Amino acid sequence: MAPGVTPPRGMRDFLPAEKARREHALGVIRRVYSNFGFDEIETPVVEDYARLHSGLGGDNEKLAFNVLKRGLTPENLAQPASTGDLSSLTDLGLRFDLTVPLARFYATHRADLPPVFRSIQIAPVWRAERPQKGRYRQFVQCDIDIIGEQGPLAEIELLTATAAALRELGLTGCRVRINDRRLLTGMLDVFGFDASERSQVLITVDKLDKVGVGGVLEELRSRGATASAVDALELFLTRVTPENPGPFGEAQIRAQLPDGIDDTVIAELASIGMAAEQADAAATGRAVGDAPFVVFDPFLVRGMGYYTGPIFEIEHPELGYSLGGGGRYDGMIGRFLGSEVPATGFSIGFERIVDLVTLPESSVSDAMVLVYDKAVAPAKLVSLKAELVATGRRVRLEPRVKNLKALLARVQGAGFGSFAFVTGETASVSDLDIKLLD
Amino acid sequence: MAPGVTPPRGMRDFLPAEKARREHALGVIRRVYSNFGFDEIETPVVEDYARLHSGLGGDNEKLAFNVLKRGLTPENLAQPASTGDLSSLTDLGLRFDLTVPLARFYATHRADLPPVFRSIQIAPVWRAERPQKGRYRQFVQCDIDIIGEQGPLAEIELLTATAAALRELGLTGCRVRINDRRLLTGMLDVFGFDASERSQVLITVDKLDKVGVGGVLEELRSRGATASAVDALELFLTRVTPENPGPFGEAQIRAQLPDGIDDTVIAELASIGMAAEQADAAATGRAVGDAPFVVFDPFLVRGMGYYTGPIFEIEHPELGYSLGGGGRYDGMIGRFLGSEVPATGFSIGFERIVDLVTLPESSVSDAMVLVYDKAVAPAKLVSLKAELVATGRRVRLEPRVKNLKALLARVQGAGFGSFAFVTGETASVSDLDIKLLD
Repeated sequence: MAPGVTPPRGMRDFLPAEKARREHALGVIRRVYSNFGFDEIETPVVEDYARLHSGLGGDNEKLAFNVLKRGLTPENLAQPASTGDLSSLTDLGLRFDLTVPLARFYATHRADLPPVFRSIQIAPVWRAERPQKGRYRQFVQCDIDIIGEQGPLAEIELLTATAAALRELGLTGCRVRINDRRLLTGMLDVFGFDASERSQVLITVDKLDKVGVGGVLEELRSRGATASAVDALELFLTRVTPENPGPFGEAQIRAQLPDGIDDTVIAELASIGMAAEQADAAATGRAVGDAPFVVFDPFLVRGMGYYTGPIFEIEHPELGYSLGGGGRYDGMIGRFLGSEVPATGFSIGFERIVDLVTLPESSVSDAMVLVYDKAVAPAKLVSLKAELVATGRRVRLEPRVKNLKALLARVQGAGFGSFAFVTGETASVSDLDIKLLD
Repeated sequence: MAPGVTPPRGMRDFLPAEKARREHALGVIRRVYSNFGFDEIETPVVEDYARLHSGLGGDNEKLAFNVLKRGLTPENLAQPASTGDLSSLTDLGLRFDLTVPLARFYATHRADLPPVFRSIQIAPVWRAERPQKGRYRQFVQCDIDIIGEQGPLAEIELLTATAAALRELGLTGCRVRINDRRLLTGMLDVFGFDASERSQVLITVDKLDKVGVGGVLEELRSRGATASAVDALELFLTRVTPENPGPFGEAQIRAQLPDGIDDTVIAELASIGMAAEQADAAATGRAVGDAPFVVFDPFLVRGMGYYTGPIFEIEHPELGYSLGGGGRYDGMIGRFLGSEVPATGFSIGFERIVDLVTLPESSVSDAMVLVYDKAVAPAKLVSLKAELVATGRRVRLEPRVKNLKALLARVQGAGFGSFAFVTGETASVSDLDIKLLD
């Protein structure tokens, strides 16, 4: 690396091998989601500053990269209307998620979209986070959303399509944990938390995986949450639970919740999970209940404040982090439209799964290198290459060098599976003696 | 469209039909270029401000969208070091082309790249131009570049790969006009222009297509170009030229130039054109010279100042604008590396070709809609769908409505080729009566 010549802080270049793997994975996701009846859309990478900062993005709004107004210099900068007001400096920002742009897109184009709109968005987003391992300032999200469908059919479609996409990527053994924001709210009500405490209590409960029961209780108490409610939560969290709560379903969900929770929500969540399980079994030809991929988790919270119903998160038994997630967010998509629109979505954390994906073998075996003597005329070389490409191969030209072994090792490392020499005697493709690299 | 809810000025949303066509076209270009031995890379959408404004971008540098420094407000803004200095406001900018990022990428990763590096970049760029018909502030470029190859083999590879990509996109009849910057320079020398006038004279000569011979001469004279040289140019431009200069080749090129031009450059350009023509004929099985796709144009200039050798531009006989172009730019790619590196590239103007591309028929015939009665259980619906998807179909669920005709017209318009009803009696996929939509 030349000194000081690097990509911008927290952002990455992708070299050929990595880029090929990324494009392969994106192609699989795009194809599976499209086959499940979703439609891909695209929006500009920037949105109006005011729309990005309308409160839908939660904490991510603070992480937006903002675009300097065109023609602005420090000299012609107007005085701000109020302290901290950025409107004199910026009018656009790079999107920090794909949900705010989707809400804006839907408001712009609703008249041209079907009553139930199933969208795919596969695109980069930007967040000015402090760079750290596994966190980037530009990263790709793969979102599917169903807008305009009130009932659980939408959730079942999301879960089934996502399970198929993960399977096609070769990620076996993934499971999806599901819960419902209304169950969480109901549980907090049962324990005796005040409605005004909910969002703060949920933020703390969300840390259960990381800090454990003791950590959660301590944080709630130190924050001054209603003491009797924290005691009730403690009693519940430390109760003796059955080792095997039985197969996924209404009874199993109820057994993991305190008494007094809304039965209709439990029934709906159970029906979503069982239907998704049944559809996934039908698609793969396995028996229902054999390697089930839906699991109920009463303490799954999901960070964003806008969720209103069922929520999901993908986990893999061998990985300590979530591979994606989503949920229902009925109040939000209609914000720019000025009307209520039901919506639910699922986002695959692309940067987390792409490292687990391998390129299919076929792409290597069809790729060959023509190693040519420098005396061979360029016209002949490129003609041979173009003829081979026309038969469906991937072909690269490489001049013959003294260290042939190193050359062949390099092209093999770059994904080429065979080679042939081109000399002054080579008259046509049929003269080539193609050898496998291995 | 809801009032005031639009994408940012000069930028576009892509609805499903348009997005599908774009992805199809990008997939074809990606596949063909990869088969021709090129490797795709990716860089972040932003680059350091100083690198974007290092003079490699020509006039486009003025059109960059700059990113506001994080944490900056009008209140904490430092005084600029000098008038017009933006470094107190911005440290990053959205790329305005793919060549500056490629030069930066090459400097960063040269040690990890092969001696001759054939890159593909398919990505958006941003320019804050005044929005007008056919000009957008975010648009996609498809570039291939060959770095590290001094000789004409690189140009022949570029031309052959581009011809194949255009053909695979279904754009028949495209031709590529070629010239060489050294021929242009030689011609200006022969006429008697001073070396210091060259770049300004070329900018004017580049307008020949638009303003004609009279317009070019008038502009040169009004700008005070060397009078005797303008007279010599006039004599040359208004000379009697042979109606049919014969097939592409050295003699034909020489016949279109004034005497006294460097023979070796003419011979090299002729060999590039003839080799590309030969390779393209070999790939398609046509005879050489039958529907040739290379044409010499002595007044092809190409806008950017950095070209040093052969230059190209794609034209289509039925279109009044260029579909792409490129050329050799040996001095530039090594700028951030601090050493000379030979390079040549070709860029397809994606936004200009995508409207000419149609989706293949097969994607429609495999797409079907399941029209379901509302009483059917979601679990059964999604199971039927997932099973059909597993057989390779694209499937969408639509609830049955009174106006069935309108529903079917809508889904047919959205690219679905068949449908089937799902009722309470439908037990499995084999019960479906699939009907074609037409």
